[in-house]
Amino acid sequence: MSANDLSRYDQKLEFILRSAAQIFADKSYHSTTMRDISRATNVSLAGLYHYCKSKEELLFLIQDNCFGRVLERLEERSVDVNDPVVKVQIFIENHLSFFAANMAEMKVLSHEAESLQGDLHAHVSGKKDKYTKLATSILREVHSSQNDKGGRVNLTVATYALFGMMNWIYNWYDPKGKLKVSDLAQNLTQLFLEGFAPGSVSEATVKMRNRPENLSIWRGIER
Amino acid sequence: MSANDLSRYDQKLEFILRSAAQIFADKSYHSTTMRDISRATNVSLAGLYHYCKSKEELLFLIQDNCFGRVLERLEERSVDVNDPVVKVQIFIENHLSFFAANMAEMKVLSHEAESLQGDLHAHVSGKKDKYTKLATSILREVHSSQNDKGGRVNLTVATYALFGMMNWIYNWYDPKGKLKVSDLAQNLTQLFLEGFAPGSVSEATVKMRNRPENLSIWRGIER
Repeated sequence: MSANDLSRYDQKLEFILRSAAQIFADKSYHSTTMRDISRATNVSLAGLYHYCKSKEELLFLIQDNCFGRVLERLEERSVDVNDPVVKVQIFIENHLSFFAANMAEMKVLSHEAESLQGDLHAHVSGKKDKYTKLATSILREVHSSQNDKGGRVNLTVATYALFGMMNWIYNWYDPKGKLKVSDLAQNLTQLFLEGFAPGSVSEATVKMRNRPENLSIWRGIER
Repeated sequence: MSANDLSRYDQKLEFILRSAAQIFADKSYHSTTMRDISRATNVSLAGLYHYCKSKEELLFLIQDNCFGRVLERLEERSVDVNDPVVKVQIFIENHLSFFAANMAEMKVLSHEAESLQGDLHAHVSGKKDKYTKLATSILREVHSSQNDKGGRVNLTVATYALFGMMNWIYNWYDPKGKLKVSDLAQNLTQLFLEGFAPGSVSEATVKMRNRPENLSIWRGIER
């Protein structure tokens, strides 16, 4: 296979996965058939099976790539950052900018968390756990760095409250609407950080850089 | 029909609705058949149709009663309350204690929001909008009551962030675990209020009363 063929293969797979995520988000994984995906993509059933073994593998690739890419981006952006409050800001901005560009995938992660079985489920759960634990450890660092010891919010509650307020956006937020992702991130960062670590937010640190980049979950698919 | 018959009818309907909510939560509304509900409840198919016209009517009764009951409880508990910060505390405590007792129904509200059609969908959406607008109006009152005009969080973002952090509990919270619902409510109240209206939370007001009560969503079904 030449490099050119590989790239065409990747592009087609990306197109199939993105279409599948949209259909799973619209009518649920269980109600979707390979025939639905074939119809939506204009790829024959035989053609689809050239790219994936089953509907379950499609769901796995969507979930696995989402967690993989969001973690990878976070690690890239957190290199050399030592201030735990800035780490929280980067975590929120990274999560929101990534998922605002991948809302269908976000809904699929949330609604179909239990739809995979066995090893595939275990593999995705492992990545999700790693991501969740990373959030908790950053929040623990924020607690440790604060001198004031009064009225602290439970770390588990704070971690899931943060994911809850971020992930709920698939129910209401329109990335093409008036409120820009950067404004959404700034508002949620202020709300969360001021509540979790009162006085930790300064105007200077909340301002996030806003550079153009590729936010597809599919770049760097491992096969 | 005697009063006694009515009560037996209500009890049976309550049992069917609660079982249906659990099955919808486990395997999704679309993947559930009336036969599944018949099997789980040990009520014959003919028997089921004595209580509801269709699977869609079951989903409607679950959603409609959830929003109806949580609103009704909130209104009862907010009578004579004027302090907007206390109103927020009651809103959070009411929502969490109600849905922690009805986790399957909570998941069904979240995952099957778009599964109803036409008039049934419009009716439930109306109640949901009323509830959401009530939250926003209380938050607006909190803003107005605050003297400090700096760094305010957007009201729409704050409203959905609040619902997000509360509703996400169906993904992680175990009402039978170590963390009591009252502690969960206290932590989320502190996190949210301190973030939304810094300095508004006092120890005295966060403490919520904890009285035994009937938290079923089914009391007072209108037929």
